Amino acid sequence: MKFIDGGVCAAKGFKASGLHVGVKTKNKDKKDLALIVSDTECTAAAVYTKNVVKAAPLHITKEHLKNGKAKVVFANSGNANACAPHGEEYALRMCSAVAEVLGLQAEDVIVASTGVIGQTLPIKTIESGVDGLVSALSYEGSYDAASAIMTTDLAMKELAVEFTVGGKVCKLGGIAKGSGMIHPNMGTMLAFLTTDCAISSEMIHEALLSATNISFNRVSVDGDSSTNDMASLMANGHAGNDEIVTKCDDYNVFAEALNTVCVELAKMIAADGEGATHLITCRVAGAKSEDDAETISKSVISSTLTKAAIFGSDANWGRVLCAMGYSGVEFDMKKVSVSFESTAGRITVCEKGCGLPFDEDFAKKILTEHDIIIDVDLHAGNAECTCWGCDITYDYIRINGDYRS
Amino acid sequence: MKFIDGGVCAAKGFKASGLHVGVKTKNKDKKDLALIVSDTECTAAAVYTKNVVKAAPLHITKEHLKNGKAKVVFANSGNANACAPHGEEYALRMCSAVAEVLGLQAEDVIVASTGVIGQTLPIKTIESGVDGLVSALSYEGSYDAASAIMTTDLAMKELAVEFTVGGKVCKLGGIAKGSGMIHPNMGTMLAFLTTDCAISSEMIHEALLSATNISFNRVSVDGDSSTNDMASLMANGHAGNDEIVTKCDDYNVFAEALNTVCVELAKMIAADGEGATHLITCRVAGAKSEDDAETISKSVISSTLTKAAIFGSDANWGRVLCAMGYSGVEFDMKKVSVSFESTAGRITVCEKGCGLPFDEDFAKKILTEHDIIIDVDLHAGNAECTCWGCDITYDYIRINGDYRS
Repeated sequence: MKFIDGGVCAAKGFKASGLHVGVKTKNKDKKDLALIVSDTECTAAAVYTKNVVKAAPLHITKEHLKNGKAKVVFANSGNANACAPHGEEYALRMCSAVAEVLGLQAEDVIVASTGVIGQTLPIKTIESGVDGLVSALSYEGSYDAASAIMTTDLAMKELAVEFTVGGKVCKLGGIAKGSGMIHPNMGTMLAFLTTDCAISSEMIHEALLSATNISFNRVSVDGDSSTNDMASLMANGHAGNDEIVTKCDDYNVFAEALNTVCVELAKMIAADGEGATHLITCRVAGAKSEDDAETISKSVISSTLTKAAIFGSDANWGRVLCAMGYSGVEFDMKKVSVSFESTAGRITVCEKGCGLPFDEDFAKKILTEHDIIIDVDLHAGNAECTCWGCDITYDYIRINGDYRS
Repeated sequence: MKFIDGGVCAAKGFKASGLHVGVKTKNKDKKDLALIVSDTECTAAAVYTKNVVKAAPLHITKEHLKNGKAKVVFANSGNANACAPHGEEYALRMCSAVAEVLGLQAEDVIVASTGVIGQTLPIKTIESGVDGLVSALSYEGSYDAASAIMTTDLAMKELAVEFTVGGKVCKLGGIAKGSGMIHPNMGTMLAFLTTDCAISSEMIHEALLSATNISFNRVSVDGDSSTNDMASLMANGHAGNDEIVTKCDDYNVFAEALNTVCVELAKMIAADGEGATHLITCRVAGAKSEDDAETISKSVISSTLTKAAIFGSDANWGRVLCAMGYSGVEFDMKKVSVSFESTAGRITVCEKGCGLPFDEDFAKKILTEHDIIIDVDLHAGNAECTCWGCDITYDYIRINGDYRS
C-alpha cells in the first residue's frame, strides 16, 4: 500500500466538483456546494452521528442507502439543515435537483449538509447552482469538492492510497471536514470516501463501520457530537478485481487501506480542530481491554484542562491522571506511568502514580512542538488504544463566540 | 429561614482562621492554610469525588469520619497532595500537627488539600504554621478561612442561614472554593459546612448526600472532575434543639436550610468558574424523569460550544439542541422548545424542534447580562431539573495554559 494523490478522484471513474453558489452569504470566494459522481453504479454504505438530534439529510441518506447502492454524493456547507423548517423536504429536493441534471434517480444520491443549525436551508439558491456544479465535474475535482465542504476548517483534508487486490491495482481516497462539534460518537464530521475496488454492499458496510470505530470515533476537538456527522464510502468496481463478498484475504487488504485513509483523515481533523495549535495523540497501553484503553484515551484527549495545559506547553501530567480517573474505567493508580513525547524528545513525568522530578525546560521544549504524544501505561494488561485531539486556545473561543454572526 | 452573615462561624461554637505560611510560594499575601474548630464534639459527614484518582487527604478523612464524629477541618491550598510521594503520610501529619496543638486526637480532624497535582506536599512548612493558625482562631474567622482555601477563585464564597427546629433557632453556614476542574461527579470542589443544630451522624450523612446531589453535583465549570473534591458538614448541637434522629418534620426544615446553602454555594462556584463572565442556569422541564432532566441539563451546561456562544452573547440555540441530543437521553426533538432569559427579558428561539424568527438585537441584549437562563421544555412529562455552569472565555485558556508555572 502506498499514498497517492487525487483524493476522492484517485479511484478510477469518480469525478468531483465544488462551487460557490451563495449558501455562505458572507464569503463569496468560499465554495459551498460539493459534488462527487461515479461513472457507474456503486455499492455504498454510510455511518451516522449517534446524536438523538439528527440533521434532515442523514435521514434521507439512510433511506437512500437501504438498497446498498449509490452513484452521487451531494453536500453543502454554510447551513446544517438541522432543526430547521422543511428539513427532509429540502434535503430530498437537493437529491432530486442533482439527479435530474445527471439523469439519475433521487435514490442514487447521498446527501449531506454542514454549517449553522436551525436556519432554513436556502434550497432555491442550492437548486440554482446544480447546473454549474454538474458542468464543473472533473476527474481532477477532488480539491474543489474538499474545499467546498469546509466551514471553520483551515486545512483542506484529502488523501488516497493504492493497494492490490486479486492482482488488480485498486485505489481508495477520501475528503473530510472538521473542525468544531467534533467528539467521538460516530463519524463526528463529514467524510466522503471512494474506491474502484469491487466489494459488496455488505462487506463495504462492515469495513466502513470498523474503520470509523478506530479512526473518526477516536477523535475529539471539543466534546460536542454534531447533529450532522456522517461518513460514506462508494465502491464502483472499476479496478476490475473479483468482487469482495466475504471476509477473505482481499477483504483484509481492502480494510487495511480503508483504515489507513480513515485514520489519517481523522488525524487531519484533530490537527485542524478549531483554533488548534497542537495535534495531541494519546496512546494508552497496558490496559485490561481495548475498550478500557479507548475510554481512558478519549477522556484524556477530551479534558479541557489537559488541552489548555498543552496549549501552554505545560507538562501538567496531574490533569492527565485526573482525566483518566473520571473516565469511568477502574484501574490501579499506583501502577500508572505517564510520558510526553514529540520530535524534540521524550520525558517520563509520572511512574507508579507519583510525580518524578524532571527537567522543566526539556519538557517545555518537547511540548512546544506541534505534534504531542501523551503516553500512558496502566501496567495491567496487554490491550492498547490511540486517540487524537487538539489543544484549546484563545482562537477556539474567538471562533465559537460568534460563529453565527 | 433567612440569610445571615458569618459563614462557617455563623453557627454557635465554631471558630475559624486562615493564614499564609508558604505553601503558595509565589503570592505571599495569599492565605494557604484554613482551620475550622468546634468548641465541642460534632456529628459529621463528608462526600467525596467519584474520580478513581483520589487525593490522599480524602482517604484519611474517610477513615477519620468512620465514627461519624469530628471537631476540626484543616485544609491547605496551593498543593493538592494528590499523586504525590508520601501522600497519606503527610495528610495524616497535618491532622496530628493540628490535633496536638488543640489537645485532640488526629481522628477528630477532617483534612483537605487543593492546588497542583503531583507535587510533594511541603509538610514542614505546613507544620510550622499550625501554632499561628490556632492562635488566630476566632468566632469571626470565617472570611479568613474562606480566603485561605481559594486557588484561582476570584470571589470568596461563604453563606449562612437561620432556621427554627423544635422552637430553637439554629444556624447553618458554609464556605466553598471552585473554580477549575469543576464538573458534576460528587462534590467537585471543597465545601465546609457547620451547624449548631443537633442532628445524628446518620441523619447528617443522609442530608449532606441529598443536598450535594441537587447542588454541587449540578455544577460544571469545565467537565473535569477533580481528584480532591469534598464537602463536609459538622453539627455541634449548640442550638439546644432535640437531636434530629429520624426523617421527621425537623429533618425537613434542616434539609431545606442545608439544600439552600449548598445550592447557593454551588451557584457561586459556577459564577466564579475560571475566567467566567456569565453564570449559566439551564432549566429543563417537561421531562419523563428527573434523571432525564438532569442529564440533559448537565449536557447543556457542559457543552463547550454552548459555553462559547454564551461568552459571545450569541443566541446559538442549535448548540443547545445538539448538546441535548448527545446527552444519551431519548426524547422527541419535534416537541422541544428553547428560550433564553435574563433580567433584560425573555425570548423563545425554538419551538417544536424548529427555529423561530427572533429579534437578534433583543436576544443579544438578553445574553449580555451576567446571569443567563437557558429554558428547555421537552413537553414529554412533568419532571424537571436545574443545573449551573459558566461560559468559556479567553481568560479560562490563559489561566489554564500556565497554571503550574
